[in-house]
Amino acid sequence: MVGGGQLARMTHQAAIALGQSLRVLANSADEPAAQVAPDVVVGSHTDLEDLRRVAAGADVLTFDHEHVPSELLDKLVAEGVNVAPPPQALLHAQDKLVMRRRLADLGAPVPRYLGIESPDGIDELDEFAATVGVPVVVKAARGGYDGRGVRVAQDLAQARDIARDYLSGGVPALVEERVALRRELSALVARSPFGQGAAWPVVETVQRDGICVQVVAPAPELTEAVAAEAQRLALRLAGELGVVGVLAVELFETTDGALLINELAMRPHNSGHWTMDGSLTSQFEQHLRAVLDYPLGGTDAVAPVTVMANVLGAAQEPTMSVDERMHHLFARMPDARVHLYGKTERPGRKVGHINFVGTDVAGPEDLAKLRERAELAAHWLSHAQWTDGWDPHAGDDAERSDEEERRR
Amino acid sequence: MVGGGQLARMTHQAAIALGQSLRVLANSADEPAAQVAPDVVVGSHTDLEDLRRVAAGADVLTFDHEHVPSELLDKLVAEGVNVAPPPQALLHAQDKLVMRRRLADLGAPVPRYLGIESPDGIDELDEFAATVGVPVVVKAARGGYDGRGVRVAQDLAQARDIARDYLSGGVPALVEERVALRRELSALVARSPFGQGAAWPVVETVQRDGICVQVVAPAPELTEAVAAEAQRLALRLAGELGVVGVLAVELFETTDGALLINELAMRPHNSGHWTMDGSLTSQFEQHLRAVLDYPLGGTDAVAPVTVMANVLGAAQEPTMSVDERMHHLFARMPDARVHLYGKTERPGRKVGHINFVGTDVAGPEDLAKLRERAELAAHWLSHAQWTDGWDPHAGDDAERSDEEERRR
Repeated sequence: MVGGGQLARMTHQAAIALGQSLRVLANSADEPAAQVAPDVVVGSHTDLEDLRRVAAGADVLTFDHEHVPSELLDKLVAEGVNVAPPPQALLHAQDKLVMRRRLADLGAPVPRYLGIESPDGIDELDEFAATVGVPVVVKAARGGYDGRGVRVAQDLAQARDIARDYLSGGVPALVEERVALRRELSALVARSPFGQGAAWPVVETVQRDGICVQVVAPAPELTEAVAAEAQRLALRLAGELGVVGVLAVELFETTDGALLINELAMRPHNSGHWTMDGSLTSQFEQHLRAVLDYPLGGTDAVAPVTVMANVLGAAQEPTMSVDERMHHLFARMPDARVHLYGKTERPGRKVGHINFVGTDVAGPEDLAKLRERAELAAHWLSHAQWTDGWDPHAGDDAERSDEEERRR
Repeated sequence: MVGGGQLARMTHQAAIALGQSLRVLANSADEPAAQVAPDVVVGSHTDLEDLRRVAAGADVLTFDHEHVPSELLDKLVAEGVNVAPPPQALLHAQDKLVMRRRLADLGAPVPRYLGIESPDGIDELDEFAATVGVPVVVKAARGGYDGRGVRVAQDLAQARDIARDYLSGGVPALVEERVALRRELSALVARSPFGQGAAWPVVETVQRDGICVQVVAPAPELTEAVAAEAQRLALRLAGELGVVGVLAVELFETTDGALLINELAMRPHNSGHWTMDGSLTSQFEQHLRAVLDYPLGGTDAVAPVTVMANVLGAAQEPTMSVDERMHHLFARMPDARVHLYGKTERPGRKVGHINFVGTDVAGPEDLAKLRERAELAAHWLSHAQWTDGWDPHAGDDAERSDEEERRR
């Protein structure tokens, strides 16, 4: 697996159960996956020799991120390496403009967009804005993640500036209409080379500052028809694009109930972390099964709802150690399923996630409580603050008898 | 963790999620845990220096098996190593005679027994057999596992021979009445140094030739009263013996419905493998939480029933590769949760297990089917034979149209 981040770390957990040996290409020995896997190649995903080293003798080469240059992957394929997903599929997760054009060609629902690949192209912005209005969203076609490379332009002048900024960095710009959103959804599927597909329940993803903070699986109050439409769409795209492995189709649900495709990812995805505790087969095991061309695993949920909350590094690192925070979290919430990535805490950085499996959730009120608990837990783990004012030691004195007081 | 077997391997999976670093003392680099963990000390669990090496700098030293000599553990404790479970507790999982006497002292229900520690003690067999009858069960007090060191003597002469055999090897013999069994149960609990306890649902374990082949969680048709009694007993023993970590209390349910304690294990246990897929918190995570003195995790089952089947090496290794067997298994049973240990296949050796989470099991018939599927799956994975005669390619020809035939 190219990349030593948390996705590779969690894929290693799944590989252990399957009796597979995951070799990881990590930038350094302290990356999340490199900390926990024995077979680590330290090197760069932009260095052909390093890529060759990690691929040597492996059944298949796959990815924890989409940043390996296509031309290097093409070389590996020419040398006989089994790359999954194949470079011609992966391209659609690497380049938003390539993706958007291909999806439009396939008749898949996408926001109206304009591709700008050179300074001349900026002139077309006026006409585009006349059609879709402002504000518009301006995205870097390549290299963005977690909200980076995505900016909202309030007017044409700002849109031009942002597009020029991307172009000057050698990256085309994708300008798109600002969609009137009800919410964001994600349709996660897997596809094997044999052609088998499997879809998990469609989930709702909640973003804050462009970063996913919570996932609710399945998406609440989504009609069966729309859910099935999203799943069919994702499975169709997996087939049309020749995806091998997990494919996440990030979707906008518009205020009038339509679905539009936002982004694609061809690897285990944040919107699928809930599957580790909430589904029969986790996305990490499924990705391995798909790239190894095993038959895929069942994708049923094990509970009516599962809520995942990302743990994002606080603006200031709390004085309380992670260990102590874990202690308090577990004391308050014995049902919290914590997954830590072994990362140094930095503001806004994804350092872990917490799943809550809502076995007993029977209605909207139960779900609201579960979501609130997930939010509390994640905030606690990053900030060492209970935002509901909970004090673990409240009542200790009141409940302590005089006898106990004397003994202290 | 001392020991590099499958229990350490699966503990490493759990350690990854908790952000903990598991160092393993393995006999060789190809043991199950050593294959998948980066921090491996290759050495012997009977060598004090090796034990010191694995313990150096660790928060806690714990075990994948009970074969570390007490005197070495006492030395480590004297040197300041935090050993969990502590040696004085672990002794009861190391020596069946010590265990049996202590349990009897505590008033816990045990089969009637006779300890033989020297050749003179053999003379007491006559009186013991006059009370409990023959056959009797003769066990080696130390060193047995998976049915080894446990023999049934049909008459007194045979009992004497077996006891002499054990004594000549320097191991005391434990002779016990042959209990009229309805079935075997296991009560799995965890206890932290803080004193918190947590109990999973009581399970039924099915043995064949002294080896566990299947576990049904919870034990079918067990009354709530008896289940609660078993859980209370296990939690009480964990406290009385000062256990830290997971404690498995193997129980006989007699034909008249009484519970008798058979064995104790103070580590993750085969009877708890179902928790990896069937419970909110797996026994491996719980063991870590207990020895690290974290608050314990919820032990609720996520489904009405979970069935675990051990994969035991076949008498003759099948010609079909493990990879191919996995392929066929997954093709037939997408809900099979497979856990492989990376072990060479040898007759009767535990090389993996398969969990089936019975989300939809509503009654005895559903359960019988799930158990049969688990049995089929485990037999397939070890033997490459479907014992129900299932042929994955049956019907291929019949279903192929003339058109398809021509295309081939």
